[in-house]
Amino acid sequence: MYLSAEHPLVSGSTSQSRLVRALRGERTEITPVWFMRQAGRSLPEYRALRTSNGMLEACLTPELASEITLQPVRRHKVDAGIFFSDIVVPLKLVGLGVDIVAGRGPVFDAPADSAAALARITSIDPLELLQRADAVRRGIELSVAMLSDESAVRGEPIPLIGFAGAPFTLAAYIGEGGPSKDHFAARRLQREDPVAWTELMAWTADVTGAFLSVQVEAGASAAQLFDSWAGSLSRTTYRDHSKWASRRALEAVRDWEVPAAEAGQTTVPLIHFGVGTGELLADMADIGADALGVDYRITLAEAAARIGRQLPLQGNLDPADLFAPEESLKAEVHRILQDGLAAPSHVFNLGHGVPQETDPDVLTRVVELVHEWRAESATPA
Amino acid sequence: MYLSAEHPLVSGSTSQSRLVRALRGERTEITPVWFMRQAGRSLPEYRALRTSNGMLEACLTPELASEITLQPVRRHKVDAGIFFSDIVVPLKLVGLGVDIVAGRGPVFDAPADSAAALARITSIDPLELLQRADAVRRGIELSVAMLSDESAVRGEPIPLIGFAGAPFTLAAYIGEGGPSKDHFAARRLQREDPVAWTELMAWTADVTGAFLSVQVEAGASAAQLFDSWAGSLSRTTYRDHSKWASRRALEAVRDWEVPAAEAGQTTVPLIHFGVGTGELLADMADIGADALGVDYRITLAEAAARIGRQLPLQGNLDPADLFAPEESLKAEVHRILQDGLAAPSHVFNLGHGVPQETDPDVLTRVVELVHEWRAESATPA
Repeated sequence: MYLSAEHPLVSGSTSQSRLVRALRGERTEITPVWFMRQAGRSLPEYRALRTSNGMLEACLTPELASEITLQPVRRHKVDAGIFFSDIVVPLKLVGLGVDIVAGRGPVFDAPADSAAALARITSIDPLELLQRADAVRRGIELSVAMLSDESAVRGEPIPLIGFAGAPFTLAAYIGEGGPSKDHFAARRLQREDPVAWTELMAWTADVTGAFLSVQVEAGASAAQLFDSWAGSLSRTTYRDHSKWASRRALEAVRDWEVPAAEAGQTTVPLIHFGVGTGELLADMADIGADALGVDYRITLAEAAARIGRQLPLQGNLDPADLFAPEESLKAEVHRILQDGLAAPSHVFNLGHGVPQETDPDVLTRVVELVHEWRAESATPA
Repeated sequence: MYLSAEHPLVSGSTSQSRLVRALRGERTEITPVWFMRQAGRSLPEYRALRTSNGMLEACLTPELASEITLQPVRRHKVDAGIFFSDIVVPLKLVGLGVDIVAGRGPVFDAPADSAAALARITSIDPLELLQRADAVRRGIELSVAMLSDESAVRGEPIPLIGFAGAPFTLAAYIGEGGPSKDHFAARRLQREDPVAWTELMAWTADVTGAFLSVQVEAGASAAQLFDSWAGSLSRTTYRDHSKWASRRALEAVRDWEVPAAEAGQTTVPLIHFGVGTGELLADMADIGADALGVDYRITLAEAAARIGRQLPLQGNLDPADLFAPEESLKAEVHRILQDGLAAPSHVFNLGHGVPQETDPDVLTRVVELVHEWRAESATPA
């Protein structure tokens, strides 16, 4: 299966956008910038829109999801929209009883704390998601159309990025039945019942793979696989019991990308990011992603050295720096842009999501700082 | 000030215990073992004792605290008792309104979310703790006496380890007003108001230093400074804005240890541990501790290489392995013991605290496995 002729990477100009070029390894004169969690809770226009809708309802109402996706693009002039979604949306789509409780996060009707409960979940065909994802498809299509209008105003292409949680992160939520500090239920399951664990990880990989594929097919020009909780694993546990599933999730997209590439067709760049995963980077760089997101805890130069290969990097301003005085913030943004020269190409981002309390004007200022900066200006005359 | 003539390191035999010898850099024939959080919630005899007492009440009732401290020593035959306490106990002692809510953790009457609220806290003299710590002193004395009885039964010295939270971890709780996933309030404060931040960190360092000193003076033969949340800091932020405070906390103990050492007197070995701090180890190894605890995410050999100096290491079984089949658990215990040969000496421990759901018999089995192992048996014949 190839991208349709109507896909923005084929028919439109997003292939020539800064973001897609940088994700493909091309050093762009102006470094592209977007922010993880840019769509949503830090924006007053978002909070105004959300007063009468639950979180998952907003994700699954195309008109709302697309409007929320566009809000930060219009306001901050970032180089991409990230589709407004949540890590548990694909689980909701295949029929799990889950809701997002304000101030707490995703909460399941019941934790999957028995072999029988897990078996009930993994007996659901992950590909059923494809039949139930019309709201997501429509949300993506609306977002792409609105980004196209915005592109016309701005005079440059603005791609949409799709988004899905990595298999371990989904498994951690399912195992715990809700948010958790150390994701112990999942880590315990892996030791106690390796067979059930492997089945669960294969299942979450396929669900997430299907969810990514839906977004890419419907018009996303890039996609990010987000591993919120991989940082709770030792490198050995990640490598032996989690990495394969992340690779499998991306392969669901690659399955039709590889023949497409062989036929000279356009493919969609995939980004992989995990919170607190400095120790795991070499392995995370090896699951088939085109670019690697880097957490704020380590520098981009360290990340480039650790992965031992050439890969575009994305990151990595510490979100806490959004609360620093202007001069410190500016110095830190410049340091990171300079640091990004250690990779073949660089997409500026935070090293974690936008905090809820962020002053939106500061984000707009960061975009300006990134767009004004030139690599030349940083090298000695 | 020197250790009193009655201190177990001076009058008793804990100086010759496996634990103290290993913490001083001596390779012991039998590797000593204890478990972070061994005292408390995983034990049925603890839960039976706690039915009618709140957590902080138990910490501050000498008869209860000492009994809870002894329970795992009797049951598992570990090589040390760790004094039953909580990170917020010293804050409670100096008068902050804080309680521990079951299933949630420490909750403050009000978050210190304004300059005025912070100033109210830091206006308290940290040394007031010394006047209010009689329950802790008495708890330590009772624990030492009970360990002495247990030592007589077992035929070998059993030291008591004191315990306190590191300054950043205390500051993170105070800033947030309770538990938090990313300790953002504290990290934000450091950027927004560096002066208030520095005052808070100096204050928490002095409170924690006083709390450690009280425990050491009352009879602890070793002490651990525990940084639960340093792993949320980048290396730069840790190095520039947190490390000095951890060093200052240990100096409160060293202030009388250094003259003691110069006068040929016995000093108390200090351990430093932080969760998820692989990236920070070189700096954490440099605050004046005698031994470094290692989180389960990296290997002891990696830790030894990273710190770039000779320091005894403590750790680091992944708590999830306590749920693995016996053969896997045994292999992992042996791997870690072998790995410990990369350091000058090794104290076996978990790489994080004992999970509440742990089968106590498994912990007992780990102690047996560690005690049975000999370095010789691991080298090829």
